[in-house]
Amino acid sequence: MSRLIEGAAIIGQSGGPTAVINQSLVGVIEGLRGYKHVKKIYGMRHGVDGLIKHLPMVDLTDYTSEALERLGKTPSAFLGSSRIKPTEADGPKIFEACKQADIRYFFYIGGNDSSDTCRIVFGLAQKNNYDMRCFHVPKTVDNDLMMSDHTPGYASAARFVAMAFMADDRDNASLPGIKINVVMGRNAGFLTAASALARHSEGDGPHLIYLPEVPFDNDKFIEDVKGMVAKHGRCQIAVSEGIKNAQGQDVAATLIQNAQTDSHGNAQLSGSGALGDMLSNLIKDKFKSPTGKPPRVRADTLGYLQRCWPEPSPVDSAEARQVGVKAAQEAMSGQTDGSIAIVRMSNHPYRIEKRVVKLSEVAAKTKIMPPEFIHENKHDVTRQFIEYAKPLVGELPHFVKL
Amino acid sequence: MSRLIEGAAIIGQSGGPTAVINQSLVGVIEGLRGYKHVKKIYGMRHGVDGLIKHLPMVDLTDYTSEALERLGKTPSAFLGSSRIKPTEADGPKIFEACKQADIRYFFYIGGNDSSDTCRIVFGLAQKNNYDMRCFHVPKTVDNDLMMSDHTPGYASAARFVAMAFMADDRDNASLPGIKINVVMGRNAGFLTAASALARHSEGDGPHLIYLPEVPFDNDKFIEDVKGMVAKHGRCQIAVSEGIKNAQGQDVAATLIQNAQTDSHGNAQLSGSGALGDMLSNLIKDKFKSPTGKPPRVRADTLGYLQRCWPEPSPVDSAEARQVGVKAAQEAMSGQTDGSIAIVRMSNHPYRIEKRVVKLSEVAAKTKIMPPEFIHENKHDVTRQFIEYAKPLVGELPHFVKL
Repeated sequence: MSRLIEGAAIIGQSGGPTAVINQSLVGVIEGLRGYKHVKKIYGMRHGVDGLIKHLPMVDLTDYTSEALERLGKTPSAFLGSSRIKPTEADGPKIFEACKQADIRYFFYIGGNDSSDTCRIVFGLAQKNNYDMRCFHVPKTVDNDLMMSDHTPGYASAARFVAMAFMADDRDNASLPGIKINVVMGRNAGFLTAASALARHSEGDGPHLIYLPEVPFDNDKFIEDVKGMVAKHGRCQIAVSEGIKNAQGQDVAATLIQNAQTDSHGNAQLSGSGALGDMLSNLIKDKFKSPTGKPPRVRADTLGYLQRCWPEPSPVDSAEARQVGVKAAQEAMSGQTDGSIAIVRMSNHPYRIEKRVVKLSEVAAKTKIMPPEFIHENKHDVTRQFIEYAKPLVGELPHFVKL
Repeated sequence: MSRLIEGAAIIGQSGGPTAVINQSLVGVIEGLRGYKHVKKIYGMRHGVDGLIKHLPMVDLTDYTSEALERLGKTPSAFLGSSRIKPTEADGPKIFEACKQADIRYFFYIGGNDSSDTCRIVFGLAQKNNYDMRCFHVPKTVDNDLMMSDHTPGYASAARFVAMAFMADDRDNASLPGIKINVVMGRNAGFLTAASALARHSEGDGPHLIYLPEVPFDNDKFIEDVKGMVAKHGRCQIAVSEGIKNAQGQDVAATLIQNAQTDSHGNAQLSGSGALGDMLSNLIKDKFKSPTGKPPRVRADTLGYLQRCWPEPSPVDSAEARQVGVKAAQEAMSGQTDGSIAIVRMSNHPYRIEKRVVKLSEVAAKTKIMPPEFIHENKHDVTRQFIEYAKPLVGELPHFVKL
């Protein structure tokens, strides 16, 4: 199967968009360019949902380099994304749509659910003796894909979170109080942990970091906050939207009224301020005293800007492009299927390699923060995490403080 | 009183910080440099609160140009801010603290409450035959100061809001649904209106804009949203945190549990997701149907990042510096008191002038969106507003769309 098959290629985008997901799209297109066997390069509208529903494909074959450069700098899924989980009946529909358009190269940019879709589509092609190469191109702000040191999309979101905490910490120092910032991440705390990159000197926030990997306890939380207020006269707090109670339930999911659930069974955690407001209210209650004035308490939920803010990490932009190119090159060189993983070769200087891994090694699996990244006090990250994350986010500003 | 008095100068920062409030601090320092009569340049810690509580002043006299440049790029009040409203008894304390330190030049960077404080302090100095010049340096993301075309701090927040809506609109187009973004602004809708700068082509969000100047009606809101969903298949909405019901009550203030109130009597509107969540829930309820799937509804509250995001509008950075310099120059040229106003001289090319206005013309007054900036449909802004706001925010990115 190392010969090149003549036919068309198709690229889809799936799951939560990122600031650099279009760089991966551009990367695949670039990697396919110049191969005469690839007659057409199509884009799927809204991932495999567009194939199932026969939405017209987008012809990307003749996009100019200038158009592609501008596209790479546009955040969120240019082709439209999808959160559907293909059913048993959908698999054959997807496969048939590909066959009809003579698709021989199938690329799917997304997270672990998307790599599973890719695996299913490849399986159907094989079963039907239809020669179609299927590649998963990694993407997720959650940074939760197996086999990879980190995932394209994460570093830009991490940069936004670090910048947000840096600036908000100055705001909180100006008008001292207790400030909660809720950060995205359902099961993995990598993005919440990135708030720690905001620290530059002693006393800088975030003063407390709560991850989904550590069971959340209201009483410990209040004690932690009291301790930090006593020490710093204020307290900036990073809380993952995915924090879980002792029973393992998502705290946010129990608070959001009419919470919506996606087809993967994931209850809504984002797009609501309920978790921050509950924690804020908890502090207001517990700090109340008949004599003393309660401290100023505010909660912000950083929201969807984390994944779409249009000033990405330069490292992330470059790597998102490279994994797209790599997937195309692998398909062109005869590899039939796989996912692209980023492996860190050295940290000083920062250097990575892109490798092909099996779809089954990534599909529907979730990586969480390893124990060595979580501080033993359970409300912070370790130096090791900082070393890990720092090279990814690019240079951060340096503020002047009293 | 045109002679220069020998003595010290002091600069304070007050109210909600902005991304460029330190540019004004640097501007005042620059404007005072080289005047031998100014023996010392001090910073107040946490505005007049620091004078009342005898907090040590910060000696800024020998800050190097390099240090000042870095300081200018640091968001939020470097000296610390304050939300206190000085009482009758506080006035004399502030005046005494100034007298003790031989302060002859008093500069106060802030909004309309701060210009009122400045007016009170100047009045006390006059009454006591103490020669002290008092200047208010304008600052507010709300853009609600009288006499000024616009206020330093606004343009950077407006830039953040425009960028946020642009990027979030791409996110919403990727995964179509209804998206609410709550924007700061208690009485004036200028910042919420800035979301309209995100539009570049037909169909771009925000599709609906709700301002505090227009009474908010739940039923009209639902009808508006339904109309936009029918037209665009999705709907991105800008809502001011300051929207009021038909009775003139702040809708958000009725929703926030344990809402905190500042000494000016302002109930907490920011630092909570309650308003967005209520509106989101309202839509989920009203779009419910026994057969059809309700649309995806999400709400984000843009929060404190609006006023501290460390990538300000270049126009705003420059003007914030200039109003500081202008206040110092006026004090040096013999003017006894006043506030600095920005007057727009032309829009093409954009050109402004800085003028001295009376403290009483600015003090404790609020400017709101003029009728010509509000669209007659009551859920949008006019072309005139766009013309007004566009030169302030700097160049915005240009995204590629299908």
